[in-house]
Amino acid sequence: MKLIGPFSQLISLDNLPIRGAIADSQLSIITDGGIVTNNGVIEKIGNFQTLKHEFPNAEIDWIKDTKIVLPAMVDCHTHICFGGNRANDFAMRNAGKTYLEIATSGGGIWSSVQHTRNASDEELLQLLLQRIDKLLHLGCTTIEIKSGYGLNLDSELKMLRVIQKAKKLTKATLVPTCLSAHLKPKDFEGSSKEYLQYILDEILPAVQSEKLADRVDIFIEKSAFQPEESHYFLLKAKEMGFQITVHADQFTPGSSRIAVEVGALSADHLEATSNGDIDFLAQSNTVAVALPGASIGLGEPFSPARKILDANGILAIATDWNPGSAPMGNLIAEASILATYQKLSTAEVWAGITFRAAKALNLEDRGVLAKGKKADFVVYNTDNFQNILYQQGELRPSMVYIDGNRLD
Amino acid sequence: MKLIGPFSQLISLDNLPIRGAIADSQLSIITDGGIVTNNGVIEKIGNFQTLKHEFPNAEIDWIKDTKIVLPAMVDCHTHICFGGNRANDFAMRNAGKTYLEIATSGGGIWSSVQHTRNASDEELLQLLLQRIDKLLHLGCTTIEIKSGYGLNLDSELKMLRVIQKAKKLTKATLVPTCLSAHLKPKDFEGSSKEYLQYILDEILPAVQSEKLADRVDIFIEKSAFQPEESHYFLLKAKEMGFQITVHADQFTPGSSRIAVEVGALSADHLEATSNGDIDFLAQSNTVAVALPGASIGLGEPFSPARKILDANGILAIATDWNPGSAPMGNLIAEASILATYQKLSTAEVWAGITFRAAKALNLEDRGVLAKGKKADFVVYNTDNFQNILYQQGELRPSMVYIDGNRLD
Repeated sequence: MKLIGPFSQLISLDNLPIRGAIADSQLSIITDGGIVTNNGVIEKIGNFQTLKHEFPNAEIDWIKDTKIVLPAMVDCHTHICFGGNRANDFAMRNAGKTYLEIATSGGGIWSSVQHTRNASDEELLQLLLQRIDKLLHLGCTTIEIKSGYGLNLDSELKMLRVIQKAKKLTKATLVPTCLSAHLKPKDFEGSSKEYLQYILDEILPAVQSEKLADRVDIFIEKSAFQPEESHYFLLKAKEMGFQITVHADQFTPGSSRIAVEVGALSADHLEATSNGDIDFLAQSNTVAVALPGASIGLGEPFSPARKILDANGILAIATDWNPGSAPMGNLIAEASILATYQKLSTAEVWAGITFRAAKALNLEDRGVLAKGKKADFVVYNTDNFQNILYQQGELRPSMVYIDGNRLD
Repeated sequence: MKLIGPFSQLISLDNLPIRGAIADSQLSIITDGGIVTNNGVIEKIGNFQTLKHEFPNAEIDWIKDTKIVLPAMVDCHTHICFGGNRANDFAMRNAGKTYLEIATSGGGIWSSVQHTRNASDEELLQLLLQRIDKLLHLGCTTIEIKSGYGLNLDSELKMLRVIQKAKKLTKATLVPTCLSAHLKPKDFEGSSKEYLQYILDEILPAVQSEKLADRVDIFIEKSAFQPEESHYFLLKAKEMGFQITVHADQFTPGSSRIAVEVGALSADHLEATSNGDIDFLAQSNTVAVALPGASIGLGEPFSPARKILDANGILAIATDWNPGSAPMGNLIAEASILATYQKLSTAEVWAGITFRAAKALNLEDRGVLAKGKKADFVVYNTDNFQNILYQQGELRPSMVYIDGNRLD
């Protein structure tokens, strides 16, 4: 039993709704707060002095100076297992080069596929661990990680095995997702429909038998997989027992509807979702995931986060950290910028990067500070909770806790 | 005499034009580069080994591992001398509150004025030094700083004196600007025209006699000062010998034209500049300063940087770091995001935060790595120059040099 505190402000987020708009006045803030943990799980939160009397035998982890504590963040959409670097793509795109010119000069997603295929397991693991470490120190203790730069049986399994290895070497919770349906690889001889069948026949059974991932994702887009074949693919993956998530409506609308129809846990991107589809999504249990890092990485509009919340949807916010379109990887900076453009309250942003993002990963044990939840939290050296988003990513956590223990 | 190197890439920016578009192919990169400095000034740049032979008696400052060196940045527009904090304004604005609601609840620029007036010199100095230190470690060794939260004789002089004190305590070059014409203070009894006359009659003579600043700025905007009175004010300030800079076209167009007409060094903001006025500005010697930090701080469109460059204008990029509309203060992050939305080449961005920004401050001795220039430079621990903007502010400098000396 351990008592951690006192914190000048403890924001549990525990009383907030799972869906829809939230006013900042709904935030409850405990001043001089404390957290009692037991074997990595929260036993109780409340006033530090009161808890000290109630748990006289608890070891005390004293917090000095003015500190704010919140639930640790959940980054529910990343592609951080990759080889190579696409800085040249970024420079060319900003300099006005077209997708085709970038691809012709050796860039584009195919470049990441080649670098990832050519990387050794150990190289890939070290790169992945560095990125996990960065996210951890930014306060993200739960991280979803997709395959999708392998795009054949061997390389997709290599990526997912590397993620499994990383699990054993980090204190972060890693949630792997099979995104073999990221795009049809150049070297696959056959149609995109045949490639999806190859994933169903060859890759997913292997993923399942090695227990490498229990989630399947697909990029439904004009340039990737088409609605009908994607719908069939997702239903089959679901029949096999996989949970579903979808890259939906990034450039063209329509695919978030498929995500809802197949009962996906989340529909991610949504920059191009039509108003009708926003309502359809918002009335479902599929979490809408905004990815502002892709907007500022590409210079594109933001997902309609405000409309999704006003339609009573479940809005999460994730980094989409990847080498092509979202190279920043700073969830607070990105979420804060989304908030200024989409007019989101502080409470809506924090819900979106904690318990609502946890829902996108089907994790009910985290994302708020409350009895029975995983004791993962993030501590800032500031006197006002509002400063965190206000500084737009420049205020970094001073401490991160996982399972009730302070990270190095 | 000192030889610093070897750097795996040395990017001098020295060959780039002062105005107009720049292709990345125009960047010249010296591999295994070195910099010879003498009394804080660059003596020569070139190949490290060649320089070692040419200057056999130079003390060598060895650079280990893979490092990139570029001219240090110039932040030519900030408001970092202020008391208080406007995190609550930020939260309220994002939550959809109006300007009036924010002002009524004690926010808005008037809140910064009150906190700045009430702060002691020492408090204000310490806050300012902290912010200077942050910018320095991000690679900005030249920083413009405006008054404008005092708005009466005593408090404006207090701000400018604090900036003068800070000059003696930092290695950064500070360039103070008198922005008493930020807005007419609530407690001034008279019209805005009368307030401008009060600045001309009372504040500027005192600023001049104490040598506190040789630059004057004004916020020309519907909610602040009107075109005609502003034009008159600027001409009078110029007659007194002040250099001129203008907050122009942030929400309504027209005032960049005044900046050009009075021969201002720079016209800053420009989010609302009309196409005709872009051409007028671009054909002048007035530097157009884009402030992407204000765009992402408010959730507003970006300045038309692409059009300005294509019209052969001189484009600089600055943070506008201030407690209200631009709280981030990370020039690379902001400039990189501007680049994705406005489609700027890497070279255009670097020109905009170095020698073109120096021109906005009328400083010809810095912003490129070349003989005779101030030996201020920034060093990154990476193997590719493009990674700096690519990581959108997440790659921080590993070393900063001022006058040829490494900063702590």
